[in-house]
Amino acid sequence: MYNFNMHLDTNIHFGKGQIKKLGKDIIKYTDRLLLVYGGGSIKKNGIYDSVVAELKDNNIYFEELSGVDPNPRIESVVEGIKLCKENQLGGILAVGGGSSIDCSKVIAAGVKYDGDPWDLVLDRKKIVDAIPIFTVLTLSATGSEMNANAVISNMTTNQKLGTGMPGITLPKASVLDPEYTYTVPAKHTAAGTADIISHTFENYFTNVKGGYLQARFAEAILKTCFHYGPIACKEPDNYEARANLMWASSWAINGLLSGGSANNWSVHPMEHELSAYYDVTHGVGLAILTPHWMRYVLNDDTLDNFVDYGINVWGLDPSLDKYEIANKAIDLTQDFFCKDLNIPASLTEVGINDENFEVMAKHAANVKGGSIQGFVNLEAEDIVKIYQAAL
Amino acid sequence: MYNFNMHLDTNIHFGKGQIKKLGKDIIKYTDRLLLVYGGGSIKKNGIYDSVVAELKDNNIYFEELSGVDPNPRIESVVEGIKLCKENQLGGILAVGGGSSIDCSKVIAAGVKYDGDPWDLVLDRKKIVDAIPIFTVLTLSATGSEMNANAVISNMTTNQKLGTGMPGITLPKASVLDPEYTYTVPAKHTAAGTADIISHTFENYFTNVKGGYLQARFAEAILKTCFHYGPIACKEPDNYEARANLMWASSWAINGLLSGGSANNWSVHPMEHELSAYYDVTHGVGLAILTPHWMRYVLNDDTLDNFVDYGINVWGLDPSLDKYEIANKAIDLTQDFFCKDLNIPASLTEVGINDENFEVMAKHAANVKGGSIQGFVNLEAEDIVKIYQAAL
Repeated sequence: MYNFNMHLDTNIHFGKGQIKKLGKDIIKYTDRLLLVYGGGSIKKNGIYDSVVAELKDNNIYFEELSGVDPNPRIESVVEGIKLCKENQLGGILAVGGGSSIDCSKVIAAGVKYDGDPWDLVLDRKKIVDAIPIFTVLTLSATGSEMNANAVISNMTTNQKLGTGMPGITLPKASVLDPEYTYTVPAKHTAAGTADIISHTFENYFTNVKGGYLQARFAEAILKTCFHYGPIACKEPDNYEARANLMWASSWAINGLLSGGSANNWSVHPMEHELSAYYDVTHGVGLAILTPHWMRYVLNDDTLDNFVDYGINVWGLDPSLDKYEIANKAIDLTQDFFCKDLNIPASLTEVGINDENFEVMAKHAANVKGGSIQGFVNLEAEDIVKIYQAAL
Repeated sequence: MYNFNMHLDTNIHFGKGQIKKLGKDIIKYTDRLLLVYGGGSIKKNGIYDSVVAELKDNNIYFEELSGVDPNPRIESVVEGIKLCKENQLGGILAVGGGSSIDCSKVIAAGVKYDGDPWDLVLDRKKIVDAIPIFTVLTLSATGSEMNANAVISNMTTNQKLGTGMPGITLPKASVLDPEYTYTVPAKHTAAGTADIISHTFENYFTNVKGGYLQARFAEAILKTCFHYGPIACKEPDNYEARANLMWASSWAINGLLSGGSANNWSVHPMEHELSAYYDVTHGVGLAILTPHWMRYVLNDDTLDNFVDYGINVWGLDPSLDKYEIANKAIDLTQDFFCKDLNIPASLTEVGINDENFEVMAKHAANVKGGSIQGFVNLEAEDIVKIYQAAL
């Protein structure tokens, strides 16, 4: 277990009707906000009205930035910064999933930065200050509500990159009301669940030794997703399912699983290329690639990790041959994504062919300094092979 | 799952040599500290010198309060408050386990309170402000390094009571260096591990439905303690064992397991009476009482919780009869405490007889408003029966 720092300084209000706790948190920092959201579904399901009522009850003035894309783009960031500066806004409230929240984080940092905000995506070290960020979560997926990370896309350069700075772009407060996810359609519930699972895998499959507690915590989140993901897809207003998935989303990627234990991530950089080139839903891309990545990296060195996974998460019989356990666990993972969550099983099914594999693989490797040095090191040619297996 | 708030605003520096991160955190708040510690073992093992070097490197002035008892007493709190007020100290650094940290929390609140500090223990609502608290952990047990709770004893009234206020008595920063626990003797390592396990049980055995993720997180901590507790007792300088136990101690009782899911606690209020009357080591009292409490509360309503415990934590065969699984899990728990951790198996072995059972049971019930309304409600007569079973 290596040294790490952890500071989870987000005030979490979890549960039904918790929106009424938010105004008090915001007003400690500012009474002028930028309200950021996506395509407008929050106006149909009543969440927008609840949020606006809470802001008005606390005499908080706000401007709005709507239409943030599912893969949030740098253009939205630029627009948000302009609104904040023109209106002297002192904070940002994101209402949505990772897209709105991630966009808000880079807007918040951009308000305090004099150059081109894309600089902050290319080099997170340039983030040295930000106005405070608050969130109301409406999709269980990215965990952005309780971490400092943001992923922003630049469609003109075909880049989708992560940024964010602990302690600066971490939300000050987040409302996690599971009822706010009741209207999320099965398709997005499935993709969100796949995203949570993938975050967990990225931390769980590590070659760092000694993070036993972290591995067991990861298994807790995986079991929760495997148990409740299909229930939430079938019964959208099942509070227990929505609550467990929502809380799992936050803990999969806030440092609990990674601190002291995780490697660089593997599947995310490969998937980011799919989204950058084809604008595929992030969770769908992850679900398609993950089993193929698993089969590609399974070897004598990584076998025990997969055996732990098979026994502790899928309850496979420990007396079986180790490779049998590992392969069965990978098959079960693939079946879960395809059959239980109804996510397309191949890149072909989502309209992706092999024409950009070489350049995407090079991009993915270059973003990570020439190769993905994660659980198992992946050069560009390895990444091409994984893409091909996923066709 | 019920509504809850969580704000884990402690900056955690985890790992070898992390003491060198502390000065920077302290200096944000104050350059005049009260240094609080226990019996002086930190002077023998070099931790005192490392802490003092870090304070001097950052030009932080300090006064000292040493000799804090294992069950910290209100007299130490009074003395600490006096030192802070006389020397205009602006913060407290606890170096030790839960005793020094708990004592420091109530000193910190007492500095900002005009009345008798025992008021703050009798009624936590009277804690409205505190000077900042920092900790350097030297014993994995109470989790006090990452929560707002404190337990203080008053030997003149035979009371041992919990207090603390989220957001006010939560440490601002904590150094968790597993090497700082290398010199903890096997006996205290065992008692500390029992304490972590008991905190986890208190949250895990709940009649609140729907906290699936919380239950799986609890199992992660239990497995970690069962795996590494005996290793740390036998190999005191096993970094992996010390690190996993240390990190488990923080998460067992910082809200991760309780938020949305836990009942009032059961075994702790019963054990606090043992400590208050006999000054027995807290973890030892918990280890002795726990299996007897489990057997007493096992019934048709609670059976499934024990079955989950047996299967998920002890790996028992799910096809066995449910009561067989439950009873076997309880037996394994008792064996673990007695055989693997070498903790005395009965109250008799630690010199406690039945003469105070009635009054202790009444105390324990009255502290909780007449009965312990936890996983299973316990009246005073139930508590007496559990004490008797543990003789």
